[in-house]
Amino acid sequence: MFRFFADINDISTDSILLCTEDSKHIRTLRLKPDEQFIVCDGNGTDYVCKLGKTGDCKKAEILSKHKTITEPSVLCRVFIAYQKGDRLDFAVQKSVELGVHDIVLFKSERCVAIPNDIPKKLARLQRISLETAKLCNRGIIPRVSSSSSLETAVNEAVTSDLTLFFYESEDQLHIKSVLQQEYSSISIFTGPEGGFQPHEVEFIRSKNIPVISLGPRILRSETAPVVALAAIMYESGNM
Amino acid sequence: MFRFFADINDISTDSILLCTEDSKHIRTLRLKPDEQFIVCDGNGTDYVCKLGKTGDCKKAEILSKHKTITEPSVLCRVFIAYQKGDRLDFAVQKSVELGVHDIVLFKSERCVAIPNDIPKKLARLQRISLETAKLCNRGIIPRVSSSSSLETAVNEAVTSDLTLFFYESEDQLHIKSVLQQEYSSISIFTGPEGGFQPHEVEFIRSKNIPVISLGPRILRSETAPVVALAAIMYESGNM
Repeated sequence: MFRFFADINDISTDSILLCTEDSKHIRTLRLKPDEQFIVCDGNGTDYVCKLGKTGDCKKAEILSKHKTITEPSVLCRVFIAYQKGDRLDFAVQKSVELGVHDIVLFKSERCVAIPNDIPKKLARLQRISLETAKLCNRGIIPRVSSSSSLETAVNEAVTSDLTLFFYESEDQLHIKSVLQQEYSSISIFTGPEGGFQPHEVEFIRSKNIPVISLGPRILRSETAPVVALAAIMYESGNM
Repeated sequence: MFRFFADINDISTDSILLCTEDSKHIRTLRLKPDEQFIVCDGNGTDYVCKLGKTGDCKKAEILSKHKTITEPSVLCRVFIAYQKGDRLDFAVQKSVELGVHDIVLFKSERCVAIPNDIPKKLARLQRISLETAKLCNRGIIPRVSSSSSLETAVNEAVTSDLTLFFYESEDQLHIKSVLQQEYSSISIFTGPEGGFQPHEVEFIRSKNIPVISLGPRILRSETAPVVALAAIMYESGNM
């Protein structure tokens, strides 16, 4: 079933005002008046809707509503170091498919591709998040934001129950050993194309954040967050 | 350390004959005569090498050899339905990063993009496998091949200890419940952009192959094999 998101303020008891873009999309889909689709409030509720007799593409008639059942029980935040454009696009799309709650980009010393216009980059990635959320049945639109430095990002991350830092040169502490515990929120960090600098890793260790391996094969920078999320979703019973 | 693969017939007791392409690559890298690199025989042995005094880029002097330590203990075969070009490129690259042993493409009814020239497509994907294997420290170059139909692919797959079929409309049997068993080889099937046809799923069930969910969020066709492999590597202690 097609899926759209609506602002909670545009939802009344029996109908939902659709945004201009979704109206246009619905028009191109040529939905029949009785054909059902979902409008999600991005906050835990799915509304089963149809267009209604007038065929007005700007307004959806609510047929029923139910709790969104696709959101994971664990709130995952992914902190991704800036990397080349298509890699970030990929990391955001796949993270949203896997169930990430929000994505924070941060500057790490070896980043080779920090965008000149960060708000424009964030807007583009937010758009990828929205389109992916529609297609993969998410109950929220994961937010994409940025943090000015690793230090600031760490301060944001440690409000989670568990924070993990993935480092390709770590070979002692493996992800499976750290995920065997109870947590309802988790933050993870992954590095840029060139990896983290040793002193960045030392800073993380000084904050008592576990530095973790993702195995003996070197994962590309855009693959690491996706694989880590897959492991978290698998272990926490959300897959 | 840079990594190359050599044919086992080109490896003698104290030196390795490098292929033309790797020789060219080494030349562009401007390696110093004493700079070390790895040549892997694609069969479980890594050779630590240097170019030697003459700086001849066609020949590597063997300094030491050791068992490749990056290969997973589980042999994973991934059967991927044909899908649009960039999706296949992605699925192959990420599967190789994750530790796949070999990849088999097969035709499923809803495939929208079966290449006209399959050998050419396979050659392209084999090249992606090689390049990825070098960069992520693999001990083998995963083979990319094709199977003429789902039926033929199933006959190939069931020689593994465990065969799993991932289906987006399954909501009862989850991957975590089927991976809690002993196996040393596993084959997995993932579908095309439009998903499998119900009668294809019935055929699989008739072969007593478990039909499995990858969770409530719909994964894109290129994401599913990667996420399934991540779960297998995680659960089997290969991450």
